[in-house]
Amino acid sequence: MSVLVVGSVAYDSVTTPAGNRKDALGGSATYFSVSSSYFTPVSVVAVVGEDFRAEDLGLLNSHGVETSGLERSKGKTFRWVGLYGTEDANTRDTLDTELNVFAHFSPTLSPEHRKQPYLFLANIDPELQLRVLDQMHTRPKLVALDTMNFWIEGQENALARVVERVDMLFVDEGEARSLAGETNLVRAVRRIMGLGPSAVIVKRGEHGALLFQGESVFAAPAFPLEDVIDPTGAGDSFAGGFVGYLAATDDLSPDSFRRAAVLGSVMGSFAVEGFSLDRTGSLTEAEIEARFRALTAVTHFTPLAEGETLPWRGSR
Amino acid sequence: MSVLVVGSVAYDSVTTPAGNRKDALGGSATYFSVSSSYFTPVSVVAVVGEDFRAEDLGLLNSHGVETSGLERSKGKTFRWVGLYGTEDANTRDTLDTELNVFAHFSPTLSPEHRKQPYLFLANIDPELQLRVLDQMHTRPKLVALDTMNFWIEGQENALARVVERVDMLFVDEGEARSLAGETNLVRAVRRIMGLGPSAVIVKRGEHGALLFQGESVFAAPAFPLEDVIDPTGAGDSFAGGFVGYLAATDDLSPDSFRRAAVLGSVMGSFAVEGFSLDRTGSLTEAEIEARFRALTAVTHFTPLAEGETLPWRGSR
Repeated sequence: MSVLVVGSVAYDSVTTPAGNRKDALGGSATYFSVSSSYFTPVSVVAVVGEDFRAEDLGLLNSHGVETSGLERSKGKTFRWVGLYGTEDANTRDTLDTELNVFAHFSPTLSPEHRKQPYLFLANIDPELQLRVLDQMHTRPKLVALDTMNFWIEGQENALARVVERVDMLFVDEGEARSLAGETNLVRAVRRIMGLGPSAVIVKRGEHGALLFQGESVFAAPAFPLEDVIDPTGAGDSFAGGFVGYLAATDDLSPDSFRRAAVLGSVMGSFAVEGFSLDRTGSLTEAEIEARFRALTAVTHFTPLAEGETLPWRGSR
Repeated sequence: MSVLVVGSVAYDSVTTPAGNRKDALGGSATYFSVSSSYFTPVSVVAVVGEDFRAEDLGLLNSHGVETSGLERSKGKTFRWVGLYGTEDANTRDTLDTELNVFAHFSPTLSPEHRKQPYLFLANIDPELQLRVLDQMHTRPKLVALDTMNFWIEGQENALARVVERVDMLFVDEGEARSLAGETNLVRAVRRIMGLGPSAVIVKRGEHGALLFQGESVFAAPAFPLEDVIDPTGAGDSFAGGFVGYLAATDDLSPDSFRRAAVLGSVMGSFAVEGFSLDRTGSLTEAEIEARFRALTAVTHFTPLAEGETLPWRGSR
């Protein structure tokens, strides 16, 4: 099945302990669509400016990303300038944000987009996310949502209206706590699930992710990396692997969600191994599969068999 | 097989978001010995003051902890006063430390202690850890070490001499980076393993733990808890479960180390569910085993079978 993503396409200027890159292709919709494109057909709805480079459109198209919804507006492409901590690459400061063409963006879905069975609402203004939901012709089989603290704090009401209409939510720990107004993470997620979503993914960067679904919790590990170049886009690449897997298999069982989380972790791990889409945009199926198997090995241990007990002192 | 632990027995006064407790039984050797006592015989070498309460000795003895090495000195028991963050219970401030009888402690091992096959050097001055190693009559089958930033910064040389003589090391992420002088965690651990230890456990609190052994990495999840009461002692309880499992099975295979890490995570999860040893000191075998199985379920997903591939878009 195919996926529709509505989000941002951006030019990012980032500085990390590994170096820096200026005006490089980025944006939530970009990372998501390229990541999911390995597994399933994907259409992107976003806006770019007159400065959007042919080679960047070429990257999307070379991955089979359907770009009829990539609107080109007068003005400059959305720009983000970020700086990552030297000690902990998980901390980042936004030095500058230029909305540019994004300031007047209102997503318009084609008839074809309106009937897509899988929908990812990437991290944009919840008012725009609502407009997307309102345009869908049929309720997708799965609607997944990403957001950030900026909207949790500034667009609480609109965000609440989106959250109650989605099946799953991607957040980090701080966002989950802030959205729920509850410091304990497990309780925070339970509260969010009470608002609507039947599944919540808590992204923890290099510490992996937690998938809450019904009463069950799944801990997806992060792949331990020796070279973290640029964390930008890791979360959207994770979501791309996750939603891409679900759409590709069209299997929404709990077991499928767990595999989707592992594949999300795999795709997130590649994203941080290069600036921009250097790595995410140039993967082979063999590389992805090898890492999926390597991550499986990272979590493997021998469970207690039925009837087997732990080695109690009292029993010897 | 039996375990010897050399460390601290303390009275802790802690404040956490869940409340506070004054002069409650604590200390690295206490948490470790009670945690490991469920699985294997354990002897403790430590010092307490004249104020050490009979009921606290009783708790150790009721768990079968062998306390002939628990020296009673003139003066007061070691005291620690700590405050945990309201937002993130993983952050803590030490408000006060009174060494008291610990200031002049020099561990003295009995002939019986000197031939123990498993040894845990809990977090104390590396000079004292060296004295313990020097007293061992035969090289234990496994020597495990814990330390902290205070010693990494202040006793670098002594600590280096301990590290090169141990088989495994328990550290948190910051400690690993600081000990290795390397910000990337994977590379930091590889560097530490170059100094001697063949296994390193990186403790990440509610994010679980990583076990590095040879070329392999194992990610042990943390049990997702709704009620975190007091994080004090989680790391030593983890180590108690870990080393206790290895000693109980006397199996030092990689697979045994992975199970040991899961059991460590189980024991650490109980420790934080109560102040002091409220929870760690009152567990049943059924509770421990149920949580081991629950943690197994938290990590379970269906791996790719041999020959199975991911759902590639290109292949459909």
